[in-house]
Amino acid sequence: MSIVVQNFERAEQRTVDALGESGVATVHEAQGRTGLFAPYMRPIYAGARIAGSAVTVSIPPGDNWMIHVAVEQCREGDILVVAPTSRCDTGYFGDLLACSLKARGVRGLIIEAGVRDVRELTAMQFPVWSRYISAQGTVKETLGSVNVPIVCAGAAVRPGDVIVADDDGVCVVAREKANEVLVQCAAREKKEAAVRERLKAGELGLDIYGMREKLAAKGLRYV
Amino acid sequence: MSIVVQNFERAEQRTVDALGESGVATVHEAQGRTGLFAPYMRPIYAGARIAGSAVTVSIPPGDNWMIHVAVEQCREGDILVVAPTSRCDTGYFGDLLACSLKARGVRGLIIEAGVRDVRELTAMQFPVWSRYISAQGTVKETLGSVNVPIVCAGAAVRPGDVIVADDDGVCVVAREKANEVLVQCAAREKKEAAVRERLKAGELGLDIYGMREKLAAKGLRYV
Amino acid sequence: MSIVVQNFERAEQRTVDALGESGVATVHEAQGRTGLFAPYMRPIYAGARIAGSAVTVSIPPGDNWMIHVAVEQCREGDILVVAPTSRCDTGYFGDLLACSLKARGVRGLIIEAGVRDVRELTAMQFPVWSRYISAQGTVKETLGSVNVPIVCAGAAVRPGDVIVADDDGVCVVAREKANEVLVQCAAREKKEAAVRERLKAGELGLDIYGMREKLAAKGLRYV
Amino acid sequence: MSIVVQNFERAEQRTVDALGESGVATVHEAQGRTGLFAPYMRPIYAGARIAGSAVTVSIPPGDNWMIHVAVEQCREGDILVVAPTSRCDTGYFGDLLACSLKARGVRGLIIEAGVRDVRELTAMQFPVWSRYISAQGTVKETLGSVNVPIVCAGAAVRPGDVIVADDDGVCVVAREKANEVLVQCAAREKKEAAVRERLKAGELGLDIYGMREKLAAKGLRYV
Amino acid sequence: MSIVVQNFERAEQRTVDALGESGVATVHEAQGRTGLFAPYMRPIYAGARIAGSAVTVSIPPGDNWMIHVAVEQCREGDILVVAPTSRCDTGYFGDLLACSLKARGVRGLIIEAGVRDVRELTAMQFPVWSRYISAQGTVKETLGSVNVPIVCAGAAVRPGDVIVADDDGVCVVAREKANEVLVQCAAREKKEAAVRERLKAGELGLDIYGMREKLAAKGLRYV
Amino acid sequence: MSIVVQNFERAEQRTVDALGESGVATVHEAQGRTGLFAPYMRPIYAGARIAGSAVTVSIPPGDNWMIHVAVEQCREGDILVVAPTSRCDTGYFGDLLACSLKARGVRGLIIEAGVRDVRELTAMQFPVWSRYISAQGTVKETLGSVNVPIVCAGAAVRPGDVIVADDDGVCVVAREKANEVLVQCAAREKKEAAVRERLKAGELGLDIYGMREKLAAKGLRYV
Repeated sequence: MSIVVQNFERAEQRTVDALGESGVATVHEAQGRTGLFAPYMRPIYAGARIAGSAVTVSIPPGDNWMIHVAVEQCREGDILVVAPTSRCDTGYFGDLLACSLKARGVRGLIIEAGVRDVRELTAMQFPVWSRYISAQGTVKETLGSVNVPIVCAGAAVRPGDVIVADDDGVCVVAREKANEVLVQCAAREKKEAAVRERLKAGELGLDIYGMREKLAAKGLRYV
Repeated sequence: MSIVVQNFERAEQRTVDALGESGVATVHEAQGRTGLFAPYMRPIYAGARIAGSAVTVSIPPGDNWMIHVAVEQCREGDILVVAPTSRCDTGYFGDLLACSLKARGVRGLIIEAGVRDVRELTAMQFPVWSRYISAQGTVKETLGSVNVPIVCAGAAVRPGDVIVADDDGVCVVAREKANEVLVQCAAREKKEAAVRERLKAGELGLDIYGMREKLAAKGLRYV
Repeated sequence: MSIVVQNFERAEQRTVDALGESGVATVHEAQGRTGLFAPYMRPIYAGARIAGSAVTVSIPPGDNWMIHVAVEQCREGDILVVAPTSRCDTGYFGDLLACSLKARGVRGLIIEAGVRDVRELTAMQFPVWSRYISAQGTVKETLGSVNVPIVCAGAAVRPGDVIVADDDGVCVVAREKANEVLVQCAAREKKEAAVRERLKAGELGLDIYGMREKLAAKGLRYV
Repeated sequence: MSIVVQNFERAEQRTVDALGESGVATVHEAQGRTGLFAPYMRPIYAGARIAGSAVTVSIPPGDNWMIHVAVEQCREGDILVVAPTSRCDTGYFGDLLACSLKARGVRGLIIEAGVRDVRELTAMQFPVWSRYISAQGTVKETLGSVNVPIVCAGAAVRPGDVIVADDDGVCVVAREKANEVLVQCAAREKKEAAVRERLKAGELGLDIYGMREKLAAKGLRYV
Repeated sequence: MSIVVQNFERAEQRTVDALGESGVATVHEAQGRTGLFAPYMRPIYAGARIAGSAVTVSIPPGDNWMIHVAVEQCREGDILVVAPTSRCDTGYFGDLLACSLKARGVRGLIIEAGVRDVRELTAMQFPVWSRYISAQGTVKETLGSVNVPIVCAGAAVRPGDVIVADDDGVCVVAREKANEVLVQCAAREKKEAAVRERLKAGELGLDIYGMREKLAAKGLRYV
Repeated sequence: MSIVVQNFERAEQRTVDALGESGVATVHEAQGRTGLFAPYMRPIYAGARIAGSAVTVSIPPGDNWMIHVAVEQCREGDILVVAPTSRCDTGYFGDLLACSLKARGVRGLIIEAGVRDVRELTAMQFPVWSRYISAQGTVKETLGSVNVPIVCAGAAVRPGDVIVADDDGVCVVAREKANEVLVQCAAREKKEAAVRERLKAGELGLDIYGMREKLAAKGLRYV
């Protein structure tokens, strides 16, 4: 039952890149507030913002063998997304695997488990979002699968889906909706930019959004 | 039962500012080790140290409507303190609300829930102490109250109380005790400064504080 | 039953220093994946990498008296390792104690509890790995013991054992195995350096480590 | 600053008892969804439902001295409510203290820390709601206060407030609102009893509460 | 974007019932160790073992309106599976909703949030597996969706999938694989029954499973 | 480096049994408040109280092979104590292994990981204290060690040490101190029995323990 799916569709790279520029909060809103990973997924260093096509890995606890298998399936512009079948804080990934992924043009790693060599990964600017930081090593004994649908940190991810990650966390966009979501992002950004200027100038959201009447109707009292 | 209290007393701004210079650990000690928020309240970036008068918000889970209401109640030098009625990791607050608060001179946000747009908030240096970081959006459907007494992260806060926050966490000082606490802070800082010099010079706390006899009396044995 | 053990053996300083240069992940691997502290032990600021001989403290919840006792037992090159007898998030340690330890040449603190004055500790570059950050103060009423075997964050530590700590966490090496582990570290680093170059050049771990046959034998299918 | 307040008002016992019969969920709803303790407060055995007047204790981590002081302040019909000043899982309370409280007619204990002798407490049917179960012992060295306002598990409690606890958790009712809340409880129970019969008979909440139009207006689509 | 899907396929009831008799651990193994919900999903009382067809609900934090909508979509033999879009410990469900579900023949509730009226639910033997127990009430303001694919406690669930739940937790079986999994369950149970008798008679797993050689080959040494 | 130690000393069975009758809280106190396991170790059903000699297992995450090896090392009166090298919630142990241990006279299992078949284990009254309950299966690929010193849930345990477990949790007594601790237990129980009678009769701990003067000296004020 352990398989490696070698062919799957990816979104167009320029769409992926544009979603990355929008960032997690905007993308998440633009697609109807879906696709967010649990907030315990945190970046190992601040400031990175990436997007890429998901190469997925379902993996046993304490065993990183399948990550080595997955590397070969990665292309320029991909992001590796790894979910263990059981909660585990082992350090599945370190600077050697990062060198290998970087050589293939992979943009980062999302892993619902532990990562190590944080100092080296930071120095080489290979961004990782993980649940734990741990130096605990793994074995290479048991198979898993690559490029099958997985659930990672509460989000359902299929190979080829678009992953966006930044300081706010991680979000997945279904591949076939990527363009549509991008349009929504642009609309949202435009609207927000206009509101931002008004707020900076001191106008209140209460007035800009016309909330006062609705609040009064709900029964809010000022005392 | 949803109300907005529009008038309440604040401490004098110079007292507030002086408490901010003392920082959380000193203020907490100076007032008899009370008023500390739970340590899961963490700053979104390191290095900020602020103080201000609390504008309080009691708010439903996953609904940030009342933050918009609270903005209008804020003045220069205030700090917004938000507690949901149920534990929730939703991202209630982002860069638009921060622009609005900044335009009013608000110094920061304390929220026992999630915050988003961390990258943008960091860039604009609007400090936030929160329980979670999450891009998950909120709705605007249900009322809460502004400027009522709340419990936030285990600390009881009333509108107008002084909030101090830095890398050590968040502390609240009762408004009417602010001056008294400030006096204690100064006394403590003076005493600590003297001790600090002696410790740096290599003297031992055991000797400076005269602990050796008491330790022996308690039965401590050196072997 | 409260004792302070004044004499114990330490590893040679140059061995200790060399282990520090290898870092936590390498040391942990080199000694057969043992000795790692739980991953909830996190540095208060990024980038520090230290090694030293353990001075151990077993301490009651909310009481830091024995840390003052322990300071006197510390020498140049030591690291203080503190474990409370009951889980507690109190802030046992701040900048005054750090001044005192620094004056004695102590390299850092490992504490399975809270620490405060994070801003000041960062400014003076005194590294701490802790479970919590909290300004909550402690009392000085109850004895504990110094330089007895303890369990800290799941790791068994004896006085004089070597502690290594960096962004990946904290690891302990048994004093009598320090030299042997160092040899293993060097071997591991040499091997990794060679592999790293090949990975950077685009070779796959699948090939370098000769994994393909074993994977096929286990039943991995490419589809 | 350590005080024992000896006199405070309690609600009428028959009001307290009646609130206990309503139970936590009803009382919490009846007073506008306030007063609930955090859900990590769990009963040590299932099935108990109690109400009583709060005797409050603010207590240091790992030190149960003030519980002994508080026992003397308890009367028939009271409930002891204990909050440590710092998060701590020590076992503050066991069967001896329970014997003492039971002799005074105290109905149970609410403690945001650890409890032990669970087997014996269960056998004697002395109910406890706690955050932890732990046999770890405490010292008797440091003062706290009895019958001052405290925050316990996120709820603000004053001496004499009414505490209700059952399998759903713990709730506090402000003493001066106890009668008013009781009236609301009765109204709520009556309404719920009527609805319950209709639901049991197979009617839908959608119809009983007249939700269909509002759902349609919000845009719900059946497909 | 809020929809209620009214028609979907269910597995045959006798297949569902048979899976329930196998229980969570066997079903999970029989389908290749997939489909398990996170272990923080715990039953509100011990001893229940149920199986049913999933009616799924995606729901906002702190808002249980869509559960009322979902009730109407439930049939005899179903199990309601509810996942909030953001982590939330609010008590979404109590005895009234349980009466309504029971009247429709629903077998239980799986909810990655809070439940209340535990005492009453236990008395009426309506089993619930939840993440939290909390009396905190919800509002009815915001839509979600019924019978769309959801992720609940880390498991991907589609309407009509088979849910099995007992003291070990909760597991989902894809509807179209239910029969196949059932066959595997029977095979596994038969094999286990034979092994069980031999183990009870004192034989060792080492011998029954023929492990000794493989252990020796891996390098296990007896000393 | 994977070894099975076949011979080690055990405490006398009547000492072990007597410690079991004292229970965790008493034993823990009697040996100076040491040896307690972390309170997240909970029994799978209430009411069991056992004691036995520890057979220890150090085991990889998600791999229960070494438990099968350890079974053979167990004798009548032993307790199996299992610690994974990395935090993991996998279900390592179920009813088949319990049948095997029971056939050998083993009294229970302590495991800092997951257990499954809770319903069956309860029915056969085989007590388990675990960190998690999970049906997630394990593999049998990687070695560990049996009867080496381990740290389990924060407690250092050597083979042959005495384990006591009940509803309060788990405690370890060093084998060579078992008799001495038993004497202390008896003394403590005698003292407590006398105090218990006085407390039941309504005397106060304040008077029995003579606390009033010390409290006054510390500054406690009654108001």
